[in-house]
Amino acid sequence: MLYIIGLGLCDETDITVKGLNAIKSCERVYLESYTSMLMISREKLEEFYNKKLILADREMVESQSDEILLNADVINVAFLVVGDPFGATTHTDLVIRARELNISITIIHNSSIMNAIGECGLQLYNFGRTISIPFFTDIWKPDSFYDKIKENKSLELHTLCLLDIKVKEQSNENLARGRKIYEPPRFMTVNQAIQQLFEIEEIHKKQVITPESLAIGISRLGSTTDQQIKVGTLTQLSNQDFGPPLHSLIIIAFLLVPLIDLRQSQVLAFLW
Amino acid sequence: MLYIIGLGLCDETDITVKGLNAIKSCERVYLESYTSMLMISREKLEEFYNKKLILADREMVESQSDEILLNADVINVAFLVVGDPFGATTHTDLVIRARELNISITIIHNSSIMNAIGECGLQLYNFGRTISIPFFTDIWKPDSFYDKIKENKSLELHTLCLLDIKVKEQSNENLARGRKIYEPPRFMTVNQAIQQLFEIEEIHKKQVITPESLAIGISRLGSTTDQQIKVGTLTQLSNQDFGPPLHSLIIIAFLLVPLIDLRQSQVLAFLW
Repeated sequence: MLYIIGLGLCDETDITVKGLNAIKSCERVYLESYTSMLMISREKLEEFYNKKLILADREMVESQSDEILLNADVINVAFLVVGDPFGATTHTDLVIRARELNISITIIHNSSIMNAIGECGLQLYNFGRTISIPFFTDIWKPDSFYDKIKENKSLELHTLCLLDIKVKEQSNENLARGRKIYEPPRFMTVNQAIQQLFEIEEIHKKQVITPESLAIGISRLGSTTDQQIKVGTLTQLSNQDFGPPLHSLIIIAFLLVPLIDLRQSQVLAFLW
Repeated sequence: MLYIIGLGLCDETDITVKGLNAIKSCERVYLESYTSMLMISREKLEEFYNKKLILADREMVESQSDEILLNADVINVAFLVVGDPFGATTHTDLVIRARELNISITIIHNSSIMNAIGECGLQLYNFGRTISIPFFTDIWKPDSFYDKIKENKSLELHTLCLLDIKVKEQSNENLARGRKIYEPPRFMTVNQAIQQLFEIEEIHKKQVITPESLAIGISRLGSTTDQQIKVGTLTQLSNQDFGPPLHSLIIIAFLLVPLIDLRQSQVLAFLW
């Protein structure tokens, strides 16, 4: 049996009891390590599960999935995913390959940014499509998200912006030379996302993003101790320090009531 | 401390370890019992938590929230919600009231229909706004969802339709006479939802819903044993038996690849 198990958003105790029981039955346990991250170390997880974790990077998942699936028709194997297995990143390819090999699959869900974001006080019903904002380079500034924010706003829908994560990426030079040397991990901050939004607005000039656009900056969603949810104009938020990753951003379409601070331990600043 | 804890979608083991630990620290534990349901009995939950559960119906949550919050500034109280606390139904009012009373709040997230739906194989990025389809009566057929499906389709976005649940509702007669006699619970089936969609199409005739519209019927999402995910035209799905509640429906905007059966234990019928 292949178990694909969501770990939730913050720490080792965010796994479900069902997921934990499944892990305990597994001979091999893989941790997907390139699309998101928990706020604790791998060692902490290993101690909690009392299992050795095998880190599964993009290369392993995309090119060596048969290694992950080896013997999973006769033994139990777990593939752990931060958040939910079918949330922001899906692992459909692994599922399809497992089916081709006649391996049974059990999905164990958990919270992901896609639903936990409701904690900011805006109703999930009032969100349009979710977008991703990738890191710009000097020569590559993909901006298809701009029109999607525009569409959402025209329908009075909020936009959840997922911010880029670069883990175990090669520089162009190392890639060209075939050297498996990896850059340090990078996580886009709310501040960087806002700068990129301003940059794209400068090009398209459709008044989708303005310095006065209302938005919510979020960091470490799901942490009961140091999550931050701050609301303000993009200009105001661009000057705030949201601390360590992961960060997300919501472009607000409308505001019916003043947003509320849903948790006393978090800093929800009413900036305007 | 007030803990607001998501229970996930299926059974007692879908709670997170964090949520379970929190419950064990609580003197009173409320189970929100009117917007959704697990697939197991209250007794099973009580046995698993080793705690007595207090059922919180709409009246209690909306009119007697101070009873729920009593002494929560000095003791721990848990309020359990099927799915995620800020998923399909939010409990913002309870949060606001708790804050007025200076009660600390901790939110413990879980999966909800809003993200677990990704298991059907369609990417969450390609969903537009989520809609609710309420039970029609002879004289009340609200249809604002129709234009929202139309908007989503025009942007090539799928629509997740949450189907109505009526728990502890009074008949008009009993309501008028002030008699607290409640109707048996009702849960809208995929089949009923499709009939209502056809009914509304008959009125508006904008070709949003046709007998050939592709859709996915889902029942008991999150169950590892008897979840169903079936894809087909609305006409085909309208003749399928999806079994016990809860049911949901997705109106598909486009289909890039054939949908896949993500779990061998489920019946994903390729009907066309």
